[in-house]
Formats: sequence, C-alpha cells, structure tokens
Amino acid sequence: MNCENSSLSIPKLSISEKDIQHRQLFKGLENKAYFNFGGQGILPQPALNAIVSAYEYLQENGPFSFKVNAWLQQKLAKTREAIATELGTTPETITFTENVTAGCDIALWGIDWQKDDRILMTDCEHPGVIATVGQICQRFGVKVDICPILNTLNEGDSVKIIEAHLQPKTRLVVLSHLLWNTGQVLPLQEIVAVCHNYSNARQQIRVLVDAAQSVGSLDLNLSELQADYYAFTGHKWLCGAGGVGGLYIRPEVFSLTLPSFSGWRAVNVNNRGEISSWKEDGQKFEVATSAYPQYLGLTAAIETHRLWGTATERYQRIYQLSAYLWQKLTEIERVECLKDSPPEAGLVSFRVDASIDYNKLAQLLERQGLFLRTIASPDCIRACVHYFTLTTEIDRLVDSIDRLIKDR
Amino acid sequence: MNCENSSLSIPKLSISEKDIQHRQLFKGLENKAYFNFGGQGILPQPALNAIVSAYEYLQENGPFSFKVNAWLQQKLAKTREAIATELGTTPETITFTENVTAGCDIALWGIDWQKDDRILMTDCEHPGVIATVGQICQRFGVKVDICPILNTLNEGDSVKIIEAHLQPKTRLVVLSHLLWNTGQVLPLQEIVAVCHNYSNARQQIRVLVDAAQSVGSLDLNLSELQADYYAFTGHKWLCGAGGVGGLYIRPEVFSLTLPSFSGWRAVNVNNRGEISSWKEDGQKFEVATSAYPQYLGLTAAIETHRLWGTATERYQRIYQLSAYLWQKLTEIERVECLKDSPPEAGLVSFRVDASIDYNKLAQLLERQGLFLRTIASPDCIRACVHYFTLTTEIDRLVDSIDRLIKDR
Repeated sequence: MNCENSSLSIPKLSISEKDIQHRQLFKGLENKAYFNFGGQGILPQPALNAIVSAYEYLQENGPFSFKVNAWLQQKLAKTREAIATELGTTPETITFTENVTAGCDIALWGIDWQKDDRILMTDCEHPGVIATVGQICQRFGVKVDICPILNTLNEGDSVKIIEAHLQPKTRLVVLSHLLWNTGQVLPLQEIVAVCHNYSNARQQIRVLVDAAQSVGSLDLNLSELQADYYAFTGHKWLCGAGGVGGLYIRPEVFSLTLPSFSGWRAVNVNNRGEISSWKEDGQKFEVATSAYPQYLGLTAAIETHRLWGTATERYQRIYQLSAYLWQKLTEIERVECLKDSPPEAGLVSFRVDASIDYNKLAQLLERQGLFLRTIASPDCIRACVHYFTLTTEIDRLVDSIDRLIKDR
Repeated sequence: MNCENSSLSIPKLSISEKDIQHRQLFKGLENKAYFNFGGQGILPQPALNAIVSAYEYLQENGPFSFKVNAWLQQKLAKTREAIATELGTTPETITFTENVTAGCDIALWGIDWQKDDRILMTDCEHPGVIATVGQICQRFGVKVDICPILNTLNEGDSVKIIEAHLQPKTRLVVLSHLLWNTGQVLPLQEIVAVCHNYSNARQQIRVLVDAAQSVGSLDLNLSELQADYYAFTGHKWLCGAGGVGGLYIRPEVFSLTLPSFSGWRAVNVNNRGEISSWKEDGQKFEVATSAYPQYLGLTAAIETHRLWGTATERYQRIYQLSAYLWQKLTEIERVECLKDSPPEAGLVSFRVDASIDYNKLAQLLERQGLFLRTIASPDCIRACVHYFTLTTEIDRLVDSIDRLIKDR
C-alpha cells in the first residue's frame, strides 16, 4: 500500500569514502544492518577504548585517591561541556543522570506539588514516565490530563491541542520532543511558548521534555527552545554506553526545582564534614558514585560524531536517509508508513498488512542480521536510521521485509 | 601514644602462596599499598574482563535486540543471585541501584510521610544521606532527632541510646551498620529488635541501614538481621566497578514501600503497551537502562572473592588484619587509634599528635604509594584492610607514617 506522497522526489544519496571510513569506527556495524538507534546506539570503538583506559587509569592511580579524584573532576567537566555543546546550552545547566527516566524523575519530584495541581501529558509518552506521573498523583493528590497528540501525525495542530487542554491548575506539561512511537517531531518551541504564556495559569506552567529520541538526532538549541526540563540519555542516538544520561534545567526554574533523591554530589561540605550549601550548578541534583568511565566513553562518542560532521550536518543526513527509507517502504505492497509524508527525523514507523505477528517478523529479520523493533501503541514496527546508515542497508532491509511478507 | 589494650596478643599472620597468587588477580595492587577500600575497592581483572566482554557481546549481538535482551535478563538474574547469596537473603529482595545513596533515597522517599512524623538518625551518618533526610523534612514536615552514637565507640551502649531516643512518632531509624568514620560495628540485630518492638510507636518503626562499609566486609545474614532497608554498593568492599549497588527490602515492608523514582524496569506492560502491574520483586523500585556490563563485572568480582574463601573466612581475615594494623599503629609514638581495642571490621581510624595537616599527610603517603584518606568528623585518618591485604603492606604503611611524623 503506497502512502500518499510517495511520488515525492528523494535526493540521490551517494556513499562516500569518508562514510565508509567513518563506519569502521563502529565495530558493531560490521556484522549487521542496525535500525535500533532509538533503543540503543552502536558504541564507537573510541568510546569503548576510553572506557577501558579509564578503568586502567583508576586501577593504576587509585581507584580512590587524591590524584584520581582530581582527574575525574576534570574529565567529568569535559563530558558536561561536550553534552552542553551538542545541546546548545552551557555546562552548568546539565545534571548527569543514569538514564532518561531518572532525569524525568528529578523534574517530576522536584516540584512542590499541591493537592489538585494538574499534569498535562500527551497520549504518546513512554511507560517509564507514566509510572512516575502515577506515583506523583497518588502521593500528592495531583490530577492528570491526557491530550491526544497521536492523531496529529498527519493532520491537525499539536500546539492548539495542547493549548486547549491547559487548565488554571496545570503546573506541568509532559511531552516528548520526538515521539518514540510514531517518529513525529513536536514543534517544541511553540508549545513551550504557549505553556509559558498561558494567561489563566496560577503559576507559570513548566514543560518537561522526554528527549530520549531527540538528543543526538535533532539539531538542538536548548537556549532557544526554552523548555524547562529536557531529559536525555547518552546511550541511544549519541551512541554512548548505557548508564549515562542527563537533565537540562532551564536557569529560570533552577532555584524553583527541589532536590529529592540527593547525595554527596549535590552538596558542599565544610571542614567539619557538615553540609554547608547546595552545589550551584546541575550537580545540585546528582546523587553519588556513578559509572564514571562511561562518562568518558560518552565524551569520546560525541567526539566521534563530530569527526563526521556538525550536529546540523548529521541531522540533515538523518533526515535524508529516513526519507529514503520511508520512500522505499511506501513502494512495497502491503506496507504502510504511519506518516503519509517523509519523517522529520530518524524514526520510521510502519504497518504490514499480512498475517504475521510483528514480533515474529522482527525476530525473523534479526536472524537475517537486520535489527529493528516493534511498538505496542500504535501497533507497528519501527526502524531508525542514523547519519552513518547506508542506503544499501536500507535497501537490504526493505527487500527482506518485502520477501518475508510476500507469502503471508 | 599507645592505646589501652595494646598488649592484647595478635595472632601471627603468615602470607601464603595462595594469598600471593590470589592478589595477582588484582592488577591495581601491583604498584601500591592500598588502604581505601571504604572509598572504592580494587577491581579484579576478571571483573574488568567481564565488563569488556559484555560490551563486545552487546556490539556483536545488538546492542538492542531480542537476543541481547534475553541474555541480559539471564545475566542480571545471576548478579542478583550472587548478591543475595553474599548477603544471606533471596534474590527477590534485592533492588539494583546506582549506588548506596540511591538505595537510601528509595527507602526515604518510599514512606507515606505525614506531618510531624519523626526520623531518628545517628550522629555518624554520611552527608549524602543527611542531604536527603533534610529534603524529606522540608517537603513533608517531618522532624529529625539525632542520637549520639559517636561516643559509644569505646564505652556505652548504642542499643540503649537508640532506644532512649525513640518517640511515638518515630517512623524510621537511619543508621550505618559499620560506621564509616570510626569503624565501629553497631549491633544491628539488637537495634532492629528494639525498634520493631518499641511499644509506644503508632506504626512499627522501620530501620534503614547505610551498608556502604558492611557489604563485602562483614559476614552478613540479612534474613537474621531483619533490617527493613539495607542499602549497599558493589564498588567498595565487593570491589566491583562504580555505578552498581543495591537495596535489600525486607519482605514484610515490601508492599508498604511506595515507588518514587520509577521507570520501565518497575512495571509490566500489556500487549497494548499500557502499564498493567508493578513488578513483584525488587525490580519494582528500579528505573531504566543502567550500565549493565558493570553488573556482570560485579558478578565476576564476587566470584573472585569466593575463589579465596567464604564470606565468613574473608571477614575473619579482615578482622585479623585490622587487629594487626591497629596494634602496629598503637605502637607508634604520637599515634592514637580512635578505638581503644582492636576493631571489629576493616576500618582503622587514628589521630596523629604532630603539627601536620591530615590531608597533607595523606597526600605525602599517596606519593609514596600508600593510599588512605582523611575523615572530617571526627577529625582523623582512616586506613582500611581487605582480606587480601598483606602484613608487609601494613608494616610499610606504619613505618612511613612513623617517619613522616617523627620530625614534626
């Protein structure tokens, strides 16, 4: 089944020598065609090397010592800087977290909730965030409103829908920048403006963004977007190791945000060992010892991407490649992309009109070295392309899907 | 200055061939004499190998795939089992956390606090835990009582002091099993019994234990101890990598404990992607993607220790070695151990009567390859011995301290 705009012309994408060389930095790309960047990215070899070197450095010079502690401070500052540059912000706005959800948790538990306050959430949010929102409601007597964004993938105006669902007691809007299920990019800057300027609000409404899919794929400038909380991870599109993520907190809401899960990284102590003050930057919301070598891995992963191109160039390439994948999929019989025009980012979700269970199909593809995943709501299959994905890999994926569904 | 019982006879400790061979598994022991296990343990080579192999497996077979997900489930179950065995409990009581403090945070934010509830905390707790207790007080109108345990190091009865500070509105007692500053081991089983049986309590008082120093050093049986929450880390005495710890939750308080920071690992979802229920074991309090290879590293670290001996045998050796260190220190002029009899565990804290800043002294020792740390309250220096520490290392440390303070 062809999608509406399948006749749209897709630019010819050539594979350059530079692309081929760059891919050699990613060992995990050698033996497969990988389309699961929205689940977890492929770790570049320089990142694994940085992790192993860091462990060796720790064992050589510590692991707990004056020398190592000073060294880690310096290395972690570098990671914070690398992240801040990628996100178009400054290092002090970045709190390190273990993953996306932990960042959302900091924001959700960081508000001085009052009974009958309201949270507005879209109908496309990840179960992880939904679980915590449920707990906030139960603990503080907060109420949740859900706004229907899913159906704005091809028509309608997400900004207006969100605006229409704001209420005087709405204190927080929870949404994803890039929807993990349909691949839709929400017009975040406009949504934030609408929330911040909502005139009936008793207090200015804050916006918490699940940025699991947008960081490392979109070309970001958080200073312009003005979202209050932007929670992300290093292990998906940034291709770092699992266990390192972050939360951007907009300077204007920093002091309004209350620490909840706290620890020694959040505080300064005096020479009697007593807590003297909170840290004055993103560290205020950090807890205790983390997998620090993985922070160095993330720095190396970000540097690897920059070898290929700027965030803008990488996003443009992702955009072109996902259009290519979308176009190819629309040309197969019995495949329908959820989006009826080329996607704005690297996620391409599609349905298959064949008597085959989607999980079964994804498993069969995995056995052929083609990695993608299913999504439960809406029921579909999702393939992700990164800037270093090859058109030949996309061709192989589409051909295999075509063959597998042909006889069913 | 000699401590009171310095004439106590310390058994002669021989260094066996087995000890020497075992130490070769720890590369970080080669170039130094390490006494900072209470800060961070030395990573055994099998643990680093397991971490690197896990990263390679992920890149070969995923990292996000049906195959890897199934494999990780199996490996994480093994880690949970290994931890449970070490702690004398069953795997379903264990929640994975990033570190000790995160485990304390889960417990502290997991109580349905009411205004004027009280927390009883000892005067020896770590700033990390104190920071969160402060936030709980501010958010829920809870009050904190501090009981003086520091002065029971050499005389007095910590159980009676804690009992005397319980109040009808006390809901939680926060204490460390093995005090990080003085090295004192609290009689946890008796303290828990006193708290659980406190007859004036409106609700049964729960006990949260900061087990940063006790897990991997004491011989533990959590089923017997009956503490409600026991928060620990893998990266100190268990010698795993930083970023993996855990929280034991006593089965009797499991359903009374409310999730706060939540995420996809805590819930089951149905085939429409909706949350259908909470996980029924320790996973209920887990959040999202972690540094999973480090979990495999922790399994390997625990297995490495078991090659040498049981938890009981390791504890006995630590006990002997710390007595040896304590004895040697008491024999130096101008050094005073905080404890006037040999310590019950691997932490030996001492003061120096010389005009030298403790941090300066620790830095000078570090330059000689002797690693220990200072403590701010009480103002002292702390050296830790593990089961694989050599008496020759202890001799070297004590000699160096003696030389460094002689002329000051």
